[in-house]
Amino acid sequence: MYTQFHIMRGNSFGKLFSLTTFGESHGPAMGVVIDGMPSGILISIDDLKAELKKRSPGIIAGTSSRVELDEPEILSGIFENKTLGTPIAVIVKNLNQKSSDYDQLKNEYRPGHADKTYEQKFGIRDHRGGGRSSGRETVSRVIAGYFASLVLPKITVKAFISKLGHFECNYIPDNLSSDFSPYSFPDTSKNEEIKNFLEDLKRKGDSIGGEVTIVVDQCPMGLGEPAFDKLKSDFAKALLSIGACVSFSYGLGYEMAAKFGSEISSNRSAFGGMEGGISNGDRMVMKIVFKPTSTIGEKALQGRHDPCIVPRAIAVVEAMIKIVLCDHFLRQNAYLNI
Amino acid sequence: MYTQFHIMRGNSFGKLFSLTTFGESHGPAMGVVIDGMPSGILISIDDLKAELKKRSPGIIAGTSSRVELDEPEILSGIFENKTLGTPIAVIVKNLNQKSSDYDQLKNEYRPGHADKTYEQKFGIRDHRGGGRSSGRETVSRVIAGYFASLVLPKITVKAFISKLGHFECNYIPDNLSSDFSPYSFPDTSKNEEIKNFLEDLKRKGDSIGGEVTIVVDQCPMGLGEPAFDKLKSDFAKALLSIGACVSFSYGLGYEMAAKFGSEISSNRSAFGGMEGGISNGDRMVMKIVFKPTSTIGEKALQGRHDPCIVPRAIAVVEAMIKIVLCDHFLRQNAYLNI
Amino acid sequence: MYTQFHIMRGNSFGKLFSLTTFGESHGPAMGVVIDGMPSGILISIDDLKAELKKRSPGIIAGTSSRVELDEPEILSGIFENKTLGTPIAVIVKNLNQKSSDYDQLKNEYRPGHADKTYEQKFGIRDHRGGGRSSGRETVSRVIAGYFASLVLPKITVKAFISKLGHFECNYIPDNLSSDFSPYSFPDTSKNEEIKNFLEDLKRKGDSIGGEVTIVVDQCPMGLGEPAFDKLKSDFAKALLSIGACVSFSYGLGYEMAAKFGSEISSNRSAFGGMEGGISNGDRMVMKIVFKPTSTIGEKALQGRHDPCIVPRAIAVVEAMIKIVLCDHFLRQNAYLNI
Amino acid sequence: MYTQFHIMRGNSFGKLFSLTTFGESHGPAMGVVIDGMPSGILISIDDLKAELKKRSPGIIAGTSSRVELDEPEILSGIFENKTLGTPIAVIVKNLNQKSSDYDQLKNEYRPGHADKTYEQKFGIRDHRGGGRSSGRETVSRVIAGYFASLVLPKITVKAFISKLGHFECNYIPDNLSSDFSPYSFPDTSKNEEIKNFLEDLKRKGDSIGGEVTIVVDQCPMGLGEPAFDKLKSDFAKALLSIGACVSFSYGLGYEMAAKFGSEISSNRSAFGGMEGGISNGDRMVMKIVFKPTSTIGEKALQGRHDPCIVPRAIAVVEAMIKIVLCDHFLRQNAYLNI
Repeated sequence: MYTQFHIMRGNSFGKLFSLTTFGESHGPAMGVVIDGMPSGILISIDDLKAELKKRSPGIIAGTSSRVELDEPEILSGIFENKTLGTPIAVIVKNLNQKSSDYDQLKNEYRPGHADKTYEQKFGIRDHRGGGRSSGRETVSRVIAGYFASLVLPKITVKAFISKLGHFECNYIPDNLSSDFSPYSFPDTSKNEEIKNFLEDLKRKGDSIGGEVTIVVDQCPMGLGEPAFDKLKSDFAKALLSIGACVSFSYGLGYEMAAKFGSEISSNRSAFGGMEGGISNGDRMVMKIVFKPTSTIGEKALQGRHDPCIVPRAIAVVEAMIKIVLCDHFLRQNAYLNI
Repeated sequence: MYTQFHIMRGNSFGKLFSLTTFGESHGPAMGVVIDGMPSGILISIDDLKAELKKRSPGIIAGTSSRVELDEPEILSGIFENKTLGTPIAVIVKNLNQKSSDYDQLKNEYRPGHADKTYEQKFGIRDHRGGGRSSGRETVSRVIAGYFASLVLPKITVKAFISKLGHFECNYIPDNLSSDFSPYSFPDTSKNEEIKNFLEDLKRKGDSIGGEVTIVVDQCPMGLGEPAFDKLKSDFAKALLSIGACVSFSYGLGYEMAAKFGSEISSNRSAFGGMEGGISNGDRMVMKIVFKPTSTIGEKALQGRHDPCIVPRAIAVVEAMIKIVLCDHFLRQNAYLNI
Repeated sequence: MYTQFHIMRGNSFGKLFSLTTFGESHGPAMGVVIDGMPSGILISIDDLKAELKKRSPGIIAGTSSRVELDEPEILSGIFENKTLGTPIAVIVKNLNQKSSDYDQLKNEYRPGHADKTYEQKFGIRDHRGGGRSSGRETVSRVIAGYFASLVLPKITVKAFISKLGHFECNYIPDNLSSDFSPYSFPDTSKNEEIKNFLEDLKRKGDSIGGEVTIVVDQCPMGLGEPAFDKLKSDFAKALLSIGACVSFSYGLGYEMAAKFGSEISSNRSAFGGMEGGISNGDRMVMKIVFKPTSTIGEKALQGRHDPCIVPRAIAVVEAMIKIVLCDHFLRQNAYLNI
Repeated sequence: MYTQFHIMRGNSFGKLFSLTTFGESHGPAMGVVIDGMPSGILISIDDLKAELKKRSPGIIAGTSSRVELDEPEILSGIFENKTLGTPIAVIVKNLNQKSSDYDQLKNEYRPGHADKTYEQKFGIRDHRGGGRSSGRETVSRVIAGYFASLVLPKITVKAFISKLGHFECNYIPDNLSSDFSPYSFPDTSKNEEIKNFLEDLKRKGDSIGGEVTIVVDQCPMGLGEPAFDKLKSDFAKALLSIGACVSFSYGLGYEMAAKFGSEISSNRSAFGGMEGGISNGDRMVMKIVFKPTSTIGEKALQGRHDPCIVPRAIAVVEAMIKIVLCDHFLRQNAYLNI
């Protein structure tokens, strides 16, 4: 008789800047190991904490009321505030898990979640929460994104909400370096309205999807590899690996389906900063879509769920972009001195 | 002094069903090596040829007039028509390259192509054609897709054109097993109109984008890995790695941006057959968008360019889906007999 | 001007049972993340501690006087004492590092150590100790070896010292399942003599090399892959990756250089349980050699150095063998149900 | 019911200079694809042919009488004699396979060969010859070694026979750049005696093992990565992946087992050019042992087997060393310009 013990291997990302994340939402800790961080780079624990704060709940009114104290602990790879070139391991303890909240989940599967597919796949599941499929896994990605950004000091990566319910921003604002918190919506004069909208959703036990636009400036030419590791391919994989992300496009994206070649050939921005899958030095623009959280109705009212995860996802989106860029930057920057 | 010799490593795909493609459009041959094909599986060279024919030009009126005789030569991995479990190498000679057609390209870069980014990146370029970035590279993928399909005899993968200029198909047809050739548009009564539309574009030296819908049926539950190797992530990477693909979505896709959770929670098809990035046994539906080919105007009139690459891309799209499914099928089907 | 920031990527091992180790000897913790552990397997923290104890100093008189309390902390991948199929992260805190012992090392390089090569390579070094190149890194391997052994319940792996100074064991003893501690020398009646020999070496500030023989029984046929991933290749890599290991052989090993084919063709044990790099079901026998520790003389007298690291290395050797076997076992046990 | 279709993935080697070999001895062709060759490097097809000639049979009297015309065909990656940075595919046709010679092998397994382990593992075997496990596979490695050497113009790699039956060379000769052909034994005055010895073995249907010493000069400091990818680990894996290789050591190697630290601490050559698994700029010295070919007696008399494969293996050994060095050279030479 064969007993199935499934072998999972999907927790690593990147070829030269390579990271492995670990941790279940209700286990002892979340963490990441980065194998491939260059040596001799100065780090700032305060900057890292600031990145983690961006994805924290409780900061943004209208989102989850959970308060998670995401205090990063560096276990290896740093000496006297500089990277050693050895693997960097950072963990964040799960201090705030209340598994009693989730006891009812032991015997039921939430639609749109990985509960059923995980149990089917692994024959076992940490029913105290999403476990490995929880959004909490993304804290590891934000940590890795911080280290990636240190390798890319000149490149700027900015993500903002371009659609959230009836709130829309159909242009790329000039003030990308501004602080759009707490909602990452460029027209911050709408913050009060958005707050009311989200609070209303929470009261009703409903949720909403959204669209995020990503702008990358100052990216050097030449990042991305031919065939399978095109920059756009790796961006797509990186972003679709975020739980609720359901769509990716770059440049003119979806509109391209109905465009004539004559309409786009002189419009450099149509290509979104990539030609042949390789960065061409132009501004890069990408759009991704998040589905609404599937937990609604009575369960949403009982639990501590976000009516919209998009504001908190912004830090994760930026982190994944930085990780891809860093990996390709290292791949491109191999010089031979013959 | 440092001279840059860039090191490229992007020509491999897949973790267990792993393939490496090679070949430049105007070099001696295109090819693929598959390391990870299971042993003992019967193959049919005729079936392989039939797959290759689908992406051939000249077959479809209105598309490229090049006639490429894509005759596959199996170099290894097969003995008495069965797979040996050893690497399968298959090549297709480039018989029809006329580099004289492309002489003018030696000193110019075509917009929207990889000409400039490649030369910048590698310091050298095969100017006789797209070289490694040519659409011709996809012949290797169709070959690999054929072998992948042998591992997945029960799963059906069908891609069709859902948008091509003003031609649209907004539903999933019932007769997916039908032959939609030559245009892969489900309403084959429109074939004459589409032909005229494409021929008209070719006369004008213009081009058009398009949208492809992909439907996967009979996929078993449990394919896809948590975190970075979610099935949707690997589909996205696989499809975005096709030259002209600019957008990927699954399930309700882009529409999710404006959906409330209450609208989708009871709609299984909204999730496109995947929950938590893992197949749930439902029908999978994905949509991708292709940009119009960038070669237009005088150059398109001189050369042998397609006014729309989407009909020929259908075989490549199906191949990439099969490759991803096969890789994840093998990853999922590791049984331990303890 | 180019500033070199070296990118290191050598801390991962294994293709399906894949692990990444991290930690410097004088940093906060050592640890390992295993991505690829099958789900649903019962673990025992006591068994894990017992494995770690085998490589502890202070237990074996005559070896290092450091007392390290290697208390494993499981951070992820386990729920109710069973593996979840998610990444398993385990750390061991570095409680006992006294960097003052090593202050003098800031400006000097120890011969035979990685001090100089690391500083040259990375431009930075944790001079408080061996850092990443310390033997302390092997604690992570013993942890991974424990989890590997759970996947391989039927295979037995036993390593013992076959040469230590003038002590030699030129045969494979019958009582392999016996406890040869503390020196892992099969003739335990020599334990007192070995103790005196090592204490004498320590007094003199000298050190000694040694040879370890490894015996694997009950290994199923078919482990190992053709070409580069032969079982013998991966054993060799795994064992040579242990700091002081300088030689690997299997079967008749070195003696084969002077053997005629006619002498070995009927002697199955000559092949050490592998043919064509693949296990054939016979007993496997391998031998490896360790160099003497390079720290001798005055420095050895001041510090807390082992006169012979071989007894403590036994647990590491067994762990690496188990890791290789587990990885190949998982690779071999991919069944297709078509 | 489960039918086993084994999935093999062991035909790739190297992380940045990455190659995949393919081909069965009696199939259409042997070949290799290199993904990771830097661009812009001048190649010489004549130099490549010269390398291939070194491992040819029929050239060396006393060795195999097969005449294989190993004519390399470059399928991709080269344009106007320069590398493009794209994958380099090179094949060699199998012109000389006479499968009738091997018909008797259909139903029998040769001891010491992979016949039985392959059939057990894959459930299928190309019984016309060794198939994938044939020594013929190494032609692909020699091709890859040639390209690796182009990346490392300053490093010299020389392998020679230090033991072949009663012929021994216990020193490293000064004239390493000399031509030791056809037997690669430094004392070429013994060539006639060696010839007689090998011819005598062939007449008797017997075979002999041997030892090869490898010397690497002018290797820069810093090659090799900590933990698992130490230079010595990758050398060991590379060399043990050659079919008949049964032992690897470096520096003082096996002698270290009985050495005191006081004996070696001032002897730089004891460390064989590596400290902490990283090259230290000194001369590197390694030794490997080959077992005698297992085909002896009546079968050896009928077939076309070598009484000693070591002379022909020299080119393969040098190729594997160059491949490892090239991979680590590229890994080490990643510069960041921040």
